[in-house]
Amino acid sequence: MVKNIYPWQKVNGGVSAPLGFSASGVKAGIKNSTKYDLALIFSEVPANSAGVFTKNLVKAHPLLLTEKHLQKGTARAVIVNSGNANACVGQAGDEAAWQMAKVTAEELGISPEEVLVSSTGVIGQEMPMAKVLPGIKNVVVEVKKLKAEHNELVLAEHADRAAMAIMTTDTVPKELALELKCSTGTVKLGVMAKGSGMIHPNMGTMLCFLTTDAKVDSLKLKELLKEAVDRSFNMISVDGDTSTNDMVVILANGQAGVELQGTDWENFCKMVDFACCQMAMAIARDGEGASKFLEIKVTGAKTLEAARKIARSVCSSSLVKSAMYGQDANWGRILAAAGYAGADFDPAKVDIYLNGLQVAAEGQGLRFSEEEALKLLEKPDILIELRLKDGSQEATAWGCDLTHKYVDINANYRT
Amino acid sequence: MVKNIYPWQKVNGGVSAPLGFSASGVKAGIKNSTKYDLALIFSEVPANSAGVFTKNLVKAHPLLLTEKHLQKGTARAVIVNSGNANACVGQAGDEAAWQMAKVTAEELGISPEEVLVSSTGVIGQEMPMAKVLPGIKNVVVEVKKLKAEHNELVLAEHADRAAMAIMTTDTVPKELALELKCSTGTVKLGVMAKGSGMIHPNMGTMLCFLTTDAKVDSLKLKELLKEAVDRSFNMISVDGDTSTNDMVVILANGQAGVELQGTDWENFCKMVDFACCQMAMAIARDGEGASKFLEIKVTGAKTLEAARKIARSVCSSSLVKSAMYGQDANWGRILAAAGYAGADFDPAKVDIYLNGLQVAAEGQGLRFSEEEALKLLEKPDILIELRLKDGSQEATAWGCDLTHKYVDINANYRT
Repeated sequence: MVKNIYPWQKVNGGVSAPLGFSASGVKAGIKNSTKYDLALIFSEVPANSAGVFTKNLVKAHPLLLTEKHLQKGTARAVIVNSGNANACVGQAGDEAAWQMAKVTAEELGISPEEVLVSSTGVIGQEMPMAKVLPGIKNVVVEVKKLKAEHNELVLAEHADRAAMAIMTTDTVPKELALELKCSTGTVKLGVMAKGSGMIHPNMGTMLCFLTTDAKVDSLKLKELLKEAVDRSFNMISVDGDTSTNDMVVILANGQAGVELQGTDWENFCKMVDFACCQMAMAIARDGEGASKFLEIKVTGAKTLEAARKIARSVCSSSLVKSAMYGQDANWGRILAAAGYAGADFDPAKVDIYLNGLQVAAEGQGLRFSEEEALKLLEKPDILIELRLKDGSQEATAWGCDLTHKYVDINANYRT
Repeated sequence: MVKNIYPWQKVNGGVSAPLGFSASGVKAGIKNSTKYDLALIFSEVPANSAGVFTKNLVKAHPLLLTEKHLQKGTARAVIVNSGNANACVGQAGDEAAWQMAKVTAEELGISPEEVLVSSTGVIGQEMPMAKVLPGIKNVVVEVKKLKAEHNELVLAEHADRAAMAIMTTDTVPKELALELKCSTGTVKLGVMAKGSGMIHPNMGTMLCFLTTDAKVDSLKLKELLKEAVDRSFNMISVDGDTSTNDMVVILANGQAGVELQGTDWENFCKMVDFACCQMAMAIARDGEGASKFLEIKVTGAKTLEAARKIARSVCSSSLVKSAMYGQDANWGRILAAAGYAGADFDPAKVDIYLNGLQVAAEGQGLRFSEEEALKLLEKPDILIELRLKDGSQEATAWGCDLTHKYVDINANYRT
């Protein structure tokens, strides 16, 4: 992040950075390992809340419960486990999700309807409740301790644990906290996320939880979240291709005591947008088996929808992804993937650039130095630009290459 | 193929089996190797013709020429090269395609408008015409020799060469000839095809050429081809995701002197359907780097379109494909891929079978023997059945697993 070009600043503390929030993670043994696998986010007061959920017809049990609990527009806690998706297990799954909300609520002294539940991991296996429920008790104990201690460093460390506890095949935790100085005070935003397999990114679960001490009503919150998700998480996935468990949730508890208006409100929306894009990029960068980070930028499109479709189509083409892994400037595959995106454009106008090197002009290949191209494609970050010269709309999608390691990971995920 | 259950019989000769057709392949050096790379199919008389083409916005130059030449509904020759797709090279590409038609016509003594042109290989590189044009002369010489010799064995051997000459990453040639006894005589059907990468199968080029000595007008031919393609080649690909060069063409020269009516016509349509499905399955089986052949059968769907969408969605899920490579009975991924197909069904009703073993009932996992599942999934052919119990429509899609070898092939295809 370059300094000073944004009105906000990076701060420590992850999802616990905003006032009135605390979070922690514990090792409940759901993963059968020594890894963190159960996270809790807690707000001292009821927080206005909104969520965006998977469009898959097959929805995980905790997701259905969380959708229900969000209908009233407020929540106080989010309990999340990794290691088991609690999906496709029938009534036992609904019961398990409800038990998770109930026990979390009992331990925290709040109502079960104030608890949001989320799970990620293998589909179709019953939740090991004998491990989950004691885990919930432990994580609540940790969070209560934090409240008593009031130590910012400890608070931040436990937020890290929460970010670790929601990981599955992620190799690094993904979290961020930002601070925005407004005319009447300061508001903070915290976020943690987890990623997934990257060919059909949304098939592995994508989770993201945002906290803020700004005061925003739940309708506005829903609107702003939807827009941010369209620009970020939906640009690392193909429309309609979503997992059974995908969920993005935001909690706004108003504890900063700041009303957001005019420029402050605009900046706040941009900050949420920025945080979601940072998480989306972190997920793409950490795609299963990824060796390269791909950014696909489409400019000059007739419509925003066309720009997005084309960026996503190039980003999710296995042939483009394989070529980037092989450091092969195969721009033909890029143009072909744009061609089947289902968006209108004129192929005979398109210019293509790979890390700044123009490889095609007006839909045709240019003679470029293969040596120079190879040097540019050896870099771990690849920017693929398509200039359509058809209009003024643009969009960016993020992804990663397709590697041998991806196949390793996914051939034996369940066993 | 089990004997006697179909009204037709397998015969020798590939695309040269029907009366009045001959074909051959030569090594023109387009591939820079010692492999066959240029094929010619020739009909002694003008043949009624029809084609189905890629829906990609980016269309290869020979494809545009062939579409134009097919408008009049007849053709006499098809010239096909592998090693270069002749796509995205601007005016030089249009010129190259036209030159290929013109030189083929001159050598055969027919009109350039009677020649269909097709190319497959790398996108964005100019055709090496200094190799292509002498190659065309050579292949015409070969075909003329066949005509003089009238030797069925030699005819069949040269049809094999044509089938080899259209291969790119295919490991085996794909051809078939069938004979149907009708009430007033016998008609024959010949077919050759080539496949492609199998994750987005249609991104690599899929070509198929059919010949028949039946008498069918070009409008009926177009209709029957469209239906056969929907049931076959479109079931190894995702709608709208087509390469720049995909093409299926049929030539009917009427040389059998048989009018097809009533049951004969129905059987002929079924035979074309069967031949296309056999080629589609052969392409799936020979998918890039494939170690397993996948057949996805969806039954009990509300609509044919829903059945097809779900079958294709499961078939093209990288997570399902990776799981099959890993011999992992991960039915959750199968159900999730059905869930994002964009088709309406009730996940809580679905039964799933893997090679006959039921692994899920009414959307939930069953306790099955992992040992038995592993034994079944060790087989090279995997049948994935989804019984939706929502209606009476059904569809089958074919594909292959996602392997390390796929990544090997596609990381360095161009170089």
